[in-house]
Amino acid sequence: MIDLEVLRDCYTTTPSKIIMLVVDGLGGLPHPDTGLSELETARIPNLDALARESACGLSTPVMPGVTPGSGPGHLALFGYDPLKYLIGRGALEALGIDVALEPGDVAARGNFCTVDGDGALVDRRARRIPSELSAPLCHRLDRIELDGVQVDVFPVQDYRFVLRLRGEGLSEAVSGTDPQRVGVPSLPVEALDAKAEVTATLANGFVAQARQMLAEEERANMVLLRGFAQLPDLPPMGRVYGLNPAGIAAYPMYRGLATVAGMEVIPTGRTFADEVETLRKNLHAHDFFFIHYKPCDAAGEDGDFDAKVKCLEDLDPFIPQIRELGAEALVVAGDHSTPAIMASHSWHPVPFMVHSRLTKGEGGSGFSGFNEKSCAQGSIGRIMATQIMLLALSHSGKLAKFGP
Amino acid sequence: MIDLEVLRDCYTTTPSKIIMLVVDGLGGLPHPDTGLSELETARIPNLDALARESACGLSTPVMPGVTPGSGPGHLALFGYDPLKYLIGRGALEALGIDVALEPGDVAARGNFCTVDGDGALVDRRARRIPSELSAPLCHRLDRIELDGVQVDVFPVQDYRFVLRLRGEGLSEAVSGTDPQRVGVPSLPVEALDAKAEVTATLANGFVAQARQMLAEEERANMVLLRGFAQLPDLPPMGRVYGLNPAGIAAYPMYRGLATVAGMEVIPTGRTFADEVETLRKNLHAHDFFFIHYKPCDAAGEDGDFDAKVKCLEDLDPFIPQIRELGAEALVVAGDHSTPAIMASHSWHPVPFMVHSRLTKGEGGSGFSGFNEKSCAQGSIGRIMATQIMLLALSHSGKLAKFGP
Repeated sequence: MIDLEVLRDCYTTTPSKIIMLVVDGLGGLPHPDTGLSELETARIPNLDALARESACGLSTPVMPGVTPGSGPGHLALFGYDPLKYLIGRGALEALGIDVALEPGDVAARGNFCTVDGDGALVDRRARRIPSELSAPLCHRLDRIELDGVQVDVFPVQDYRFVLRLRGEGLSEAVSGTDPQRVGVPSLPVEALDAKAEVTATLANGFVAQARQMLAEEERANMVLLRGFAQLPDLPPMGRVYGLNPAGIAAYPMYRGLATVAGMEVIPTGRTFADEVETLRKNLHAHDFFFIHYKPCDAAGEDGDFDAKVKCLEDLDPFIPQIRELGAEALVVAGDHSTPAIMASHSWHPVPFMVHSRLTKGEGGSGFSGFNEKSCAQGSIGRIMATQIMLLALSHSGKLAKFGP
Repeated sequence: MIDLEVLRDCYTTTPSKIIMLVVDGLGGLPHPDTGLSELETARIPNLDALARESACGLSTPVMPGVTPGSGPGHLALFGYDPLKYLIGRGALEALGIDVALEPGDVAARGNFCTVDGDGALVDRRARRIPSELSAPLCHRLDRIELDGVQVDVFPVQDYRFVLRLRGEGLSEAVSGTDPQRVGVPSLPVEALDAKAEVTATLANGFVAQARQMLAEEERANMVLLRGFAQLPDLPPMGRVYGLNPAGIAAYPMYRGLATVAGMEVIPTGRTFADEVETLRKNLHAHDFFFIHYKPCDAAGEDGDFDAKVKCLEDLDPFIPQIRELGAEALVVAGDHSTPAIMASHSWHPVPFMVHSRLTKGEGGSGFSGFNEKSCAQGSIGRIMATQIMLLALSHSGKLAKFGP
């Protein structure tokens, strides 16, 4: 964000509106049988038409070759340098299940595990104990009390839970307890700097009480903790850019990321249709909207090429609905690529487009549509994902000239 | 410039010559009726032919999405990071009317204005009082004396003037007096840090005396000051690159920018033909020449697409004259885009080309000429404008291998 702060005299508050549609895991790679990527395979006439009237390019979320998680991928799109503003695993896990984090809270990712009579690990995931068995255990652990802090335990799924410590003087600078192998006992939590001693002592107290409480359990007779993290201290988007930003997302983690960036999260339903309706109803109240479309990423992670194509085709009919809202700048971007042939997030640059009244001539007649190959030839070229916000601001008249 | 200093052991002084032709506001956007930009519309056979024998690309002056003023746009072409080396408004205004600034001088932009009997602003621009009425008032203000500093007032145009303070211990860290609205009095100049107290006191003394001197005037009975600025402390191009650089520009502001970068400014006439003649006559005396072509920017700012096309066509016949001077490297670049359809500077990347004995094969036969779309496909690609100097140096044999 250092670079962006340099531009602080240029950010201008205006009534114009920006809509940033983030298609999670948007980018892909060609199917070996056809040589066409998910975007090239999908019938997406509305996205293609929008691209022909937009300034297009490819965005690099972190650095070439670097595969981002959801946190860095989104923060970059909001303009935050993802190498500077890091969201730790515990904090992201908490955001992912709608657990509120306040500044100072420490969250850790927890696993139920199985230990033998000597305390040596037998299974680091308690033989993947299902949610219906683990949730009551989380409620039991939630009763643990530690001096001077509030302790809360939230079930995630199967063997996973989140531990949240709330109080004064906590620190994320403590090590986890998972030795990453069986046959040895779990590790004690250790302070990584002097200010973290209190937190380490508290966390070890939690583990000791948990072990007592779970001693009679067959599978889940112990816990492992890792990824202790606090919220990063981000300058809020509203203050940095002079915006009144809002986030709309059906999935908790993305609502959490919007909150971290200082957006107001608008409650919505469970589908993208709900999100678009929420956008329409609240268009008057904000000047920047982040709206999140999740399904492409899940299909890509499943390695299901056809399902990812279908998710893109399902998104396409919403584009005219979003266009007719008349935002001065409409951005369609992705937090990272999730090529189905890799069945995972990847480092590949992500297609994006910026549409405004100025971009009609930028796509060009030879432009095939919205996909990796055509965007590589787009008028913007390859830029860092953190710079997309600057284009959105410029195209909506919110970024004044730099320097006389 | 930090990056460039890293290469200090590579800069090599040689007899070879570089000519950098800066076409102000070079880049444009397609006309909605034709889909063709100003460069694509113009008949510019000589620029097109040069591009087919050049290495071409698009340059980003500051950052994607950021619209540069003239100062940052030119400093970037000379290799200076425009986010690091800022030229304040007052200093640029002074350079724009050929007012000499020495290190330590503070310049401010002044407006004549109209106040009522209580001192409240009635018109921030003194009803745009014309130059023939304001110039004598400037001469009157020029007689103001302040303790320990030299005070000079220079007319600009209509209601605008430049105030220059010269002396020891001055600072640019003071606020302006323009409240940006009428119905309220002007603001006092305030020191933004402790070292600026003296300057604030002097500036307030100037305003008080000006008000007395102008009390009987009908329109221009008060002044507003803003944009207090000193020259930035740039490492001179000559020292950084081992060059003996010269600047040739018909317009004062660009001579000023050349001076700021440490070039020797060669006097010239009022037309580009004069500039080219000056270049020819002085070719023996320097190894780097910045030569400035202004008209495209003015036409673009006027929103006159056809006039900008005409300005490009007017430039074209000079290209053979410049080529036959035989400089080892010839660069044609722009400080920023000024699309006529926007009638303003813009953030769009700017076409450029570097021609040398090595580049004959780089344009290619499929290359349509010198314009935004073909340069986007050029052999250099998209680079930061600050990096164009490195290419000019390399192509003229002035940049040795980096590292053993």
